[in-house]
Amino acid sequence: MSADQLSVYEAIRQRRDVRAEFTGEVIDDETLMRLLTAAHQAPSVGNSQPWDFVIVREPDTLRRFADHVADMRVAFRESLPADRAATFDPIKIEGIVESGTGIVVTHDDSRGGPQVLGRASVPETGVYSTVLAIQNLWLAATAEQVGVGWVSFYDPEILRELVGLPAGIKPIAWLCVGPVDHFQEVPDLERFGWRSGRPLAAAIHHERFGANTDSGEPN
Amino acid sequence: MSADQLSVYEAIRQRRDVRAEFTGEVIDDETLMRLLTAAHQAPSVGNSQPWDFVIVREPDTLRRFADHVADMRVAFRESLPADRAATFDPIKIEGIVESGTGIVVTHDDSRGGPQVLGRASVPETGVYSTVLAIQNLWLAATAEQVGVGWVSFYDPEILRELVGLPAGIKPIAWLCVGPVDHFQEVPDLERFGWRSGRPLAAAIHHERFGANTDSGEPN
Repeated sequence: MSADQLSVYEAIRQRRDVRAEFTGEVIDDETLMRLLTAAHQAPSVGNSQPWDFVIVREPDTLRRFADHVADMRVAFRESLPADRAATFDPIKIEGIVESGTGIVVTHDDSRGGPQVLGRASVPETGVYSTVLAIQNLWLAATAEQVGVGWVSFYDPEILRELVGLPAGIKPIAWLCVGPVDHFQEVPDLERFGWRSGRPLAAAIHHERFGANTDSGEPN
Repeated sequence: MSADQLSVYEAIRQRRDVRAEFTGEVIDDETLMRLLTAAHQAPSVGNSQPWDFVIVREPDTLRRFADHVADMRVAFRESLPADRAATFDPIKIEGIVESGTGIVVTHDDSRGGPQVLGRASVPETGVYSTVLAIQNLWLAATAEQVGVGWVSFYDPEILRELVGLPAGIKPIAWLCVGPVDHFQEVPDLERFGWRSGRPLAAAIHHERFGANTDSGEPN
């Protein structure tokens, strides 16, 4: 099946947060542009399109970020009780070097000027717009058999310095992006026993929060 | 074409923030469940699945929220310079009553316990997860010929009270959700001259922010 044909429902079902399945090939520029085009078609409050994408492929930059993330991994592990640390140990948290391409997604809250339509009373809708663009990119990548892994084990100030973000530009995500030969069927954190999913029924409420007719779970 | 078949790229292209195109029919429960299932398949930091969905169909609740949003619209209009106010006047900002169904998407930052894998150094990744779920829902809705309109003209405290959100549960969005007979080809805010899109090339940087080889725009 060609990338153009994968249905949105299948893309949503197949999408995984990829760490270990990168083939080592680097995504070609044409495919990368299709992913960025998909991201750029996301909705944004007041049509502000507050996102930017920094494409990182310099091996030295990838290596330095991977080293930083490795340090952050150690710090997180040390915060865990012993049983959780043991569960955490085999879980891979990034594929920065292996993917060959990082996309640093950033947010500019000043874009759109002083009166962004729809942002006056809920200012967070600005950054939410940038996050919506990430999900577009992620689903398009799934159709391309390209894996995306969102790395969040980092100090934002280190990332800011690494790719030269000016004041006012907020880093939102480092995405490892590269071809994969398959996607895992079961998300890593379930496979490794870190945390299993919550039933959808527990998340659905009718008319008022807590008025949940579909589940015996307390709210 | 059936809803199962629309490609992810087409869904991304066709998706619109809908205000005026609701048919007045109410989305059936089976379709609504498919949309919520798509949302619930979103990635989440540490597999925390921190989202909830409050389905609102009581006409009185829809009416009360619409009245509140109308007040907020007036306040926003008054903040605008005269020329922008004139541009704003014909723009419809919500379809709360017409859509027949509101989905209040909420976020629980405590879900997943004290050590959410991947959230230690970037705590905002919690709320980002909930936003990713919204984009899944929005794209699945597009495949179903169901419109979604994200309303953000509201005081979060009013919305909290309206649907009974307990402390610790943050409202992220009110989504108007209902069948449409078509999607606009051009986004409303472009059609009405509020703000046109930025070229993608201006959003792409290489290796470092501002090292933008594709555009003459200053960064």
